[in-house]
Amino acid sequence: MKIPMNELAAHAGELMERAGVPEPAARRVAETLVSADARNIHSHGVIRLARYIDCIRSGGIRPDAELKIIDEGPAFLRVSANGGLGIPASCETVERLIAKSAAMPLAAASVSHSDHYGAAGYYAMKCAEAGLIGFSMSNTCPLIAVTGAAAAGIGNNPFAYAAPAGKYCAVLFDICMSVVASGKIMLAAADNRPIPEGWILDKHGKPTTDPQAIYDGAIMLPLGGHKGYGLALMVEMLSGVLAGAGTLSGVNSWNTVPGRDADTGHFFMTVNPAFFGGLDNFTARMEKVIEELTSAPRLDGVEKIYYPGELEFISERRAQTEGIELPEGSVSELERAEKLVGA
Amino acid sequence: MKIPMNELAAHAGELMERAGVPEPAARRVAETLVSADARNIHSHGVIRLARYIDCIRSGGIRPDAELKIIDEGPAFLRVSANGGLGIPASCETVERLIAKSAAMPLAAASVSHSDHYGAAGYYAMKCAEAGLIGFSMSNTCPLIAVTGAAAAGIGNNPFAYAAPAGKYCAVLFDICMSVVASGKIMLAAADNRPIPEGWILDKHGKPTTDPQAIYDGAIMLPLGGHKGYGLALMVEMLSGVLAGAGTLSGVNSWNTVPGRDADTGHFFMTVNPAFFGGLDNFTARMEKVIEELTSAPRLDGVEKIYYPGELEFISERRAQTEGIELPEGSVSELERAEKLVGA
Repeated sequence: MKIPMNELAAHAGELMERAGVPEPAARRVAETLVSADARNIHSHGVIRLARYIDCIRSGGIRPDAELKIIDEGPAFLRVSANGGLGIPASCETVERLIAKSAAMPLAAASVSHSDHYGAAGYYAMKCAEAGLIGFSMSNTCPLIAVTGAAAAGIGNNPFAYAAPAGKYCAVLFDICMSVVASGKIMLAAADNRPIPEGWILDKHGKPTTDPQAIYDGAIMLPLGGHKGYGLALMVEMLSGVLAGAGTLSGVNSWNTVPGRDADTGHFFMTVNPAFFGGLDNFTARMEKVIEELTSAPRLDGVEKIYYPGELEFISERRAQTEGIELPEGSVSELERAEKLVGA
Repeated sequence: MKIPMNELAAHAGELMERAGVPEPAARRVAETLVSADARNIHSHGVIRLARYIDCIRSGGIRPDAELKIIDEGPAFLRVSANGGLGIPASCETVERLIAKSAAMPLAAASVSHSDHYGAAGYYAMKCAEAGLIGFSMSNTCPLIAVTGAAAAGIGNNPFAYAAPAGKYCAVLFDICMSVVASGKIMLAAADNRPIPEGWILDKHGKPTTDPQAIYDGAIMLPLGGHKGYGLALMVEMLSGVLAGAGTLSGVNSWNTVPGRDADTGHFFMTVNPAFFGGLDNFTARMEKVIEELTSAPRLDGVEKIYYPGELEFISERRAQTEGIELPEGSVSELERAEKLVGA
């Protein structure tokens, strides 16, 4: 059954309000999660609501926390989310950052004492919609073994960028630093298929091809070996160290212990094409780059070469007209959220 | 035979001067290349000199080009290298960027109409030595097949960052966007060892495990599949599109056609910890992060976990006291450079 986007967002917002989240924070959480579902990134959609409510109920997230400005200037902003939800804190921070960015070649904002902030790409796209190149990143609790290690030592630290691209809307790129997302391993486990060596280590730090390990303490490996390690450290440095948030084991899991204070950090940055040859010139040149990339000769069996974000924009346009078909896991977590708040 | 660093730099500088490169550009090229040799990155060391001279001789690089400032403000700088050598243009640009960065939370500089700029990490480290988080990136001619393509469509676009890290000197991370560097495939070819599937495509765009393909039009594959594609596009966007340099096939190879105008672009960026809690606080927190990362339980057979840049700093300290042992390929290219300029 397909649900219209605005209905799903209204329902998600209502659940957040019933959990004690005031406006406009409840609406911000709802819109951000529904945007991920619309872009077919259901892992970061309304499936998260029940867990946010678990954390609120057990004291790990303050539902009514207000953003605290620690320091700011014309081109920067340092805030604390004050132990509240990561999404409304990030939405408000990025709105303030975009306002500063109009008059600046570069600007950045850091957020400390925060929590799960949804899909990294959401905030980068807000910048692109404002005519800016936007970057968004967050640390997480340790999930990845760094090169040579037999234990999870650093987060899978999501990183996203987006930029305006004229008639192609934008480029939108959003990754985490592990070889594959855990969801892909869960699918292999369900199908009883072995996974390639190099995706994960088992809980003892030994290489394994057994997908069942994902349910028994598996440790993710970084993409491209030491390259993913270094990229994860870049994100840790900006969103943890520089932001004054928790770092490495100082960031608490948002999945395993609901009553914890996550102390997650985020970092957002903009580059303003108006200072580098002008926005129109930039988007015209981006269009040319996209056209050249996607018109390359294709591998056998490949029907189309996509630019980063294109698949998400196709899903989003369909969702806007046809509504969103939620996968089973999202539906059951949504029902669990409804029960938790008596809706 | 080990050569003292200052002797090697003086010799390299003399060769550049004989090729028509004036001071201080000749010295800048020499110092940058020798720094790479000292850090054990011989692929970006004095091995490059002969090729730079080939390009100068055939009209592809203007040896006496002067940097042209296109636009600037308190936090940004746009320059053209005017068809000259990439290294002196980048050195001068980064010096100007660092001077601006002292008073700014963020700053950036773009370079157009440039050429090969040596090791990306060199410029990021200059920023770290000035107490800044530094980023450095450049596009290249197309070398990598983007996801789904059967031809090289985008450069392997080097990307580096560095940051001050107190008693650990710095973190320094410097990668290109292909799964492996071509040198690693050449070693496999020399040993007659097949390479893993997923490193390269042959010249027809077919997957191959034959390392000999590297000598016959092989196409590199991006690290982490679509993740490396997106990261390469990020670098292309900032150092090509935004900088007003050539993009994709508009960047000419510096290896195959010496008489060409490369029109390479670079992008440099700084984030100043003084605006985000202070430099001392930042380096103290970086030390803690490095200590936690490197003290993780290790895989069997792993003696030590390194932080990004640590191996390069160990090599560099050794080179400073013991001199540099150049590999055979560097020695023969150095001899070729000497012959070219009659030294």
